[in-house]
Amino acid sequence: MLNYDQVFIRDFVPSAIAFLLKGESDIVKNFLLHTLQLQSWEKTVDCYSPGQGLMPASFKVRSVPLDGISEAFEEVLDPDFGESAIGRVAPVDSGLWWIILLRAYGKITGDYALQERVDVQTGIRLILNLCLSDGFDMFPTLLVTDGSCMIDRRMGIHGHPLEIQALFYSALRCAREMIGVTDGSKNLICAINNRLSALSFHIREYYWVDIKKINEIYRYKTEEYSHDAINKFNIYPEQIPSWLADWIPVKGGYLIGNLQPAHMDFRFFSLGNLWAIVSSLATQRQSEGILNLIEAKWDDIVANMPLKICYPALEYEEWRIITGSDPKNT
Amino acid sequence: MLNYDQVFIRDFVPSAIAFLLKGESDIVKNFLLHTLQLQSWEKTVDCYSPGQGLMPASFKVRSVPLDGISEAFEEVLDPDFGESAIGRVAPVDSGLWWIILLRAYGKITGDYALQERVDVQTGIRLILNLCLSDGFDMFPTLLVTDGSCMIDRRMGIHGHPLEIQALFYSALRCAREMIGVTDGSKNLICAINNRLSALSFHIREYYWVDIKKINEIYRYKTEEYSHDAINKFNIYPEQIPSWLADWIPVKGGYLIGNLQPAHMDFRFFSLGNLWAIVSSLATQRQSEGILNLIEAKWDDIVANMPLKICYPALEYEEWRIITGSDPKNT
Repeated sequence: MLNYDQVFIRDFVPSAIAFLLKGESDIVKNFLLHTLQLQSWEKTVDCYSPGQGLMPASFKVRSVPLDGISEAFEEVLDPDFGESAIGRVAPVDSGLWWIILLRAYGKITGDYALQERVDVQTGIRLILNLCLSDGFDMFPTLLVTDGSCMIDRRMGIHGHPLEIQALFYSALRCAREMIGVTDGSKNLICAINNRLSALSFHIREYYWVDIKKINEIYRYKTEEYSHDAINKFNIYPEQIPSWLADWIPVKGGYLIGNLQPAHMDFRFFSLGNLWAIVSSLATQRQSEGILNLIEAKWDDIVANMPLKICYPALEYEEWRIITGSDPKNT
Repeated sequence: MLNYDQVFIRDFVPSAIAFLLKGESDIVKNFLLHTLQLQSWEKTVDCYSPGQGLMPASFKVRSVPLDGISEAFEEVLDPDFGESAIGRVAPVDSGLWWIILLRAYGKITGDYALQERVDVQTGIRLILNLCLSDGFDMFPTLLVTDGSCMIDRRMGIHGHPLEIQALFYSALRCAREMIGVTDGSKNLICAINNRLSALSFHIREYYWVDIKKINEIYRYKTEEYSHDAINKFNIYPEQIPSWLADWIPVKGGYLIGNLQPAHMDFRFFSLGNLWAIVSSLATQRQSEGILNLIEAKWDDIVANMPLKICYPALEYEEWRIITGSDPKNT
């Protein structure tokens, strides 16, 4: 049985925005509150309990008979935190979308009482704790496993994919506006501000490519060991894919899909680039550059979908190695 | 300038064990205490401060003139937390090795006063905080970027590489023996115990391959969505590499290099497999199986090095795509 009977958090967001714009805000409020309750679900998978605050990827509406009353049913929600998902992908984006949607709800309806509720404030903090907890990372970006932002299958976007970073930046900005200012929240707001500036520096500086940057990468020296290395991530110029040099327009540019040690994923990801514009993660010049590129490459990027998730698609050996021969990922 | 003037934490460990066995324990004690001081170094890279508790990958001994005295110098240590490293790889293994070495020092010398020092206890706890902090992970394994366990370059071992998990398991077991039992440490010891059992279940169950398991994978159905999926990680049987079926001996088996959503890295990594035996992360039957495999495949695994880090080496398109055309990684 496949997962088509599930309601996905990420998939509901565009519908929720549409409901809000049409003035049907109750359904969005109910969604926010019901998913908040699912967040506190105690989860154990193979004797391991994931971090508190994780939002499920999806939930399923299930009818259960009411005790003692024949033919009476109530509906309960069964959440999935990735433990049943195809490939067991952790839903990193769900909590980020939840914060973004909560902010949109307040802005559009003017009903700020919802975000001020104690349980809602706690929900925001639990999600932020997961994102901001100390790890081994040297970068301000979030480290995630493959496929954690969009589809629960391998896309070769493990590590620090742009899509997650754009949602992360956006969720931090939304959370900063919503967290009640108390003595207890000062440190949290300070941590958010620090992360926002480090994150925007990192993405704007290291994820941005245009024709000038690509020419720089072609001339990169490798094996540099120092603070002031130009080729900080030890990128071999041979990594520049053959399609890119002909594809990049003279005017414009975009944010690459992923940056890892010795690894730039030059594919164009639509959600990440557009969300970087929406959230002001990209600078104004970069935002204009992305829109110029989309216009210049309209036939490549806009198709029957209508917008492609990613360009170009992986083929042949790259498809075999990077997606693990996933026939749905072509 | 390359990094050959650096002392690497991981590289010193085998020497340290040799010193301990020869009775020269002072040099090891000094190493443990000096690196402990480097741990508390405040680090900021591109406006981002990595988590407190991170141990440097390496340090460099630098002579600085003593004030006011001509021709007098003192030696200071300059740590590198990956911010100067080739490819900017975070040193996840350093802190784990430090805990393991501290335990070895106590066991061999009988000098338990060192591990009981307040600053040493704090050092252990800071490292554990980094490893045990809540994240988005669905698995008890540590999620890391590529090359974080051995060499600061791309090896295609991003995610949950066996090498890091074996060190993690070993460090948790060592830390459990060394943490002073106080009211304040009860929760920590409880967290360590929970993680140890979840981690050993996960590795023993999902990383182990032998001829029986490979035949199971050949018959995997994909796209299973449920708690009781057999193919939990949505592995396409096409992922089984062509070299493997002929290579795996009838008797024996090994722990695979990495497990991710929809991704098994079937390469044999020596350190991870041997350390899994040393630390009892592998069951007794698995340990015997690994040793049987090494014996049966002696000519493949033991060469001039004398022991290969990894078998088989990546070639052609896989080398281009997985290592990013790194000529040193062949």
